[in-house]
Amino acid sequence: MEYLDESEREEHWEKIHEALINEQIDQFRAEFLEIHPYDQAKIFEEQPEEIRSLIYTYLSPEEMADVMENIDSEDVEPFFNEMNPRYAAGVLAEMSTDDAVDILNEFDKNKVASFLSIMDKESAGEIKELLHYEEKTAGSIMTTEFVSIHLNQTVKEAMRHLRKEAPDAETIYYLFVVDEQKCLVGVLSLRDLIIAEGDWLISDVMSDRVVSVGVTDDQEEIAQMMRDYDFLALPVVGFQNYLLGIITVDDIMDVMEEEASDDYSKLAGISDMDRPDDTAFTSAKKRLPWLVILLFLGMFTASIIGRFEETLDQVAILAIFIPLIAGMAGNTGTQALAVAVRGIATGEIAKQGKSKILVREAFTGLINGIACGILITIVVYVWKEDFYLGLLVGLSTMATLIVATIAGAMIPLIMHRLNIDPAVASGPFITTINDIFSILIYFGMATAFMNLLIQ
Amino acid sequence: MEYLDESEREEHWEKIHEALINEQIDQFRAEFLEIHPYDQAKIFEEQPEEIRSLIYTYLSPEEMADVMENIDSEDVEPFFNEMNPRYAAGVLAEMSTDDAVDILNEFDKNKVASFLSIMDKESAGEIKELLHYEEKTAGSIMTTEFVSIHLNQTVKEAMRHLRKEAPDAETIYYLFVVDEQKCLVGVLSLRDLIIAEGDWLISDVMSDRVVSVGVTDDQEEIAQMMRDYDFLALPVVGFQNYLLGIITVDDIMDVMEEEASDDYSKLAGISDMDRPDDTAFTSAKKRLPWLVILLFLGMFTASIIGRFEETLDQVAILAIFIPLIAGMAGNTGTQALAVAVRGIATGEIAKQGKSKILVREAFTGLINGIACGILITIVVYVWKEDFYLGLLVGLSTMATLIVATIAGAMIPLIMHRLNIDPAVASGPFITTINDIFSILIYFGMATAFMNLLIQ
Repeated sequence: MEYLDESEREEHWEKIHEALINEQIDQFRAEFLEIHPYDQAKIFEEQPEEIRSLIYTYLSPEEMADVMENIDSEDVEPFFNEMNPRYAAGVLAEMSTDDAVDILNEFDKNKVASFLSIMDKESAGEIKELLHYEEKTAGSIMTTEFVSIHLNQTVKEAMRHLRKEAPDAETIYYLFVVDEQKCLVGVLSLRDLIIAEGDWLISDVMSDRVVSVGVTDDQEEIAQMMRDYDFLALPVVGFQNYLLGIITVDDIMDVMEEEASDDYSKLAGISDMDRPDDTAFTSAKKRLPWLVILLFLGMFTASIIGRFEETLDQVAILAIFIPLIAGMAGNTGTQALAVAVRGIATGEIAKQGKSKILVREAFTGLINGIACGILITIVVYVWKEDFYLGLLVGLSTMATLIVATIAGAMIPLIMHRLNIDPAVASGPFITTINDIFSILIYFGMATAFMNLLIQ
Repeated sequence: MEYLDESEREEHWEKIHEALINEQIDQFRAEFLEIHPYDQAKIFEEQPEEIRSLIYTYLSPEEMADVMENIDSEDVEPFFNEMNPRYAAGVLAEMSTDDAVDILNEFDKNKVASFLSIMDKESAGEIKELLHYEEKTAGSIMTTEFVSIHLNQTVKEAMRHLRKEAPDAETIYYLFVVDEQKCLVGVLSLRDLIIAEGDWLISDVMSDRVVSVGVTDDQEEIAQMMRDYDFLALPVVGFQNYLLGIITVDDIMDVMEEEASDDYSKLAGISDMDRPDDTAFTSAKKRLPWLVILLFLGMFTASIIGRFEETLDQVAILAIFIPLIAGMAGNTGTQALAVAVRGIATGEIAKQGKSKILVREAFTGLINGIACGILITIVVYVWKEDFYLGLLVGLSTMATLIVATIAGAMIPLIMHRLNIDPAVASGPFITTINDIFSILIYFGMATAFMNLLIQ
């Protein structure tokens, strides 16, 4: 890979640092501005405060905006606090509107208001508009810096307009065509524009089958759509197709990463994925809630087993298979859960129908239940030389796997129907629910067939 | 959303179907070719075989290639089997090389050879070259249909070259600049080209700090890079920077989806995520391997509890807390695992250092262990009115949480060091390992302090 790795970054940093301590501003700017803003950001983030404050004086707000755009929006607040407020407001104004809004969403309301009050009117207006949109909707990830061209322009005029707008626009590779009312009526790729003759009309070369998203649409659905249709940018429209902004593919990649990370964390039972620089305390705090919930669910499980204390007193050996049965129930439930959550996320379940999925899961549970049940019966029989014990453990496993598989698939489907994010029905939750089912089945059967077990 | 949803697709299909049964080829082509290839693919896939064979005769190989590019490469083999071989070879030849290669990778070798033998020489040659690259490397996802321009061309010449190449290239928005030896020396965005004056030299307007990837680089790292740097295309180079191909952002979105799905499945203990149209048998077969492994690990856990049978006989109540302690160990281990696997995937752990992460995880385990331990001691004491029992369960939980957290973080790190994909150390595996630790700790402590428990 030829982008800057750790050691190259250090090498660059040495040159940059030397320029800084010798206060050679030109030297610093030459070295720093030559590298990709992502690498600038990585170098910037590694610096101590006194060096950072030197950098603020050496870079224009516009240059600093490039750096800030490449830092995770959750991490930048301290940097903005260090800057003098007028400079900070300048940096925010120079950033892509969508990135500036992401950052301002992390600040408290008073601070946002004070930044907006010292910013130039135009930028402040654009930012204010976007601040209204709810998180994770099209509105919150779109940018208003796009190029739109008019239906009645010629190719040549559009090209001239494009050359002028190119430096400020997020992307110029998709051109959105609007009518008099600024309503979206068509789309044209730069590729099409380049191939077209100069005197043709835009309305003749554009495609009027333009795909757009609504401003309140969910970001995950938009990501899905962009991936399916291989778009580089999607227009966002409001009432009566009024063109409000565009969403570009680079922002969608961040959405995909965020959503994937989110689903993954929830499956593992972490409310919010740890950040690499979290302390042990922060990290413990994020994981503790699930552990406490599990603790009480575990107590409930314990009380259920407690109700079978008599059975357990008579046949103490029953206890040794508790982790086996509960573990298999938990796992098969998590498998079914994962399939259902992914199926909902990709829209495949909507297409196939919920009942079809549930029937399939029931049969999957049955097949695996029979297979594992027979295997366990044999293993326990051979090991403990007790056929009825083997049969009990085997039959319980079979019944448990069927119930657990159906539960694993059904719970996220029900949550989805109730408009709750199905990924919240995370792994540990399903696992514990299935622990309870499995123990009821296992001890229930043991109690019913007690006379066979204590012969 | 304005792309075709289920009902719109059906509406379109009705018109298309009517044209087909009346054998109105022009009508069919007008309706079908007007919609996005993704929607064409969705409609095509839903048809019965006899209708599909009609479609093959109505569409040119080039038009069918667009349809096939929008179907998952794992699903297309039956369609190619239905086509007459010469038509099928034509379709493959007209597809993007990278997509054709993805499909051919699913076929058996003889069939690939027979398709290549009836294909035009040029396409066959391009495909053969790409078939050599290992799966999940840059080589396997790159395309050879890119536009390269020469160092010494003028902007005007480059623009003319571009207009000619545009219809066939995957993307024209990044232009890669090569020298006499076809080695990569620079990059230029179409945006820069459009703004530049016609008589300037490419070598003066290009950037020579071009980021490239090696042909054997891993696709996950490339996806990471594309996301960090917000590129739309990356050049792939071989020996001495020889330009071999490019990777475009739409393929990278598919890689991101694939990798996320992969990590998610592994955390849930599914070897390969179910496909929505899988039968219960296929689906059961995919999940069974993990269940059987867990079954034997569970037997091992059972044998460990069996060794404490004496303890269990004397204090049967111990059994009721087994699911609680094992469940919490499993969950805390999965949390630590998920954080470590994500950290490895995003490269953050390489940056922070493994030992730092392990120390943090140990402290995280200690904090949560103390918190949960105290809580459990109190709850059990209040519930069972037995202080020593409460203390035993509480202390075991504490020790278990510490060990399980460290194990959850350490196992993927060790696997990564051994060059095994850390995501293989999936949730159920860690859970079962931690079951064993937790039971050893719990019963070990119970046996040691037996005299306090049976007062």
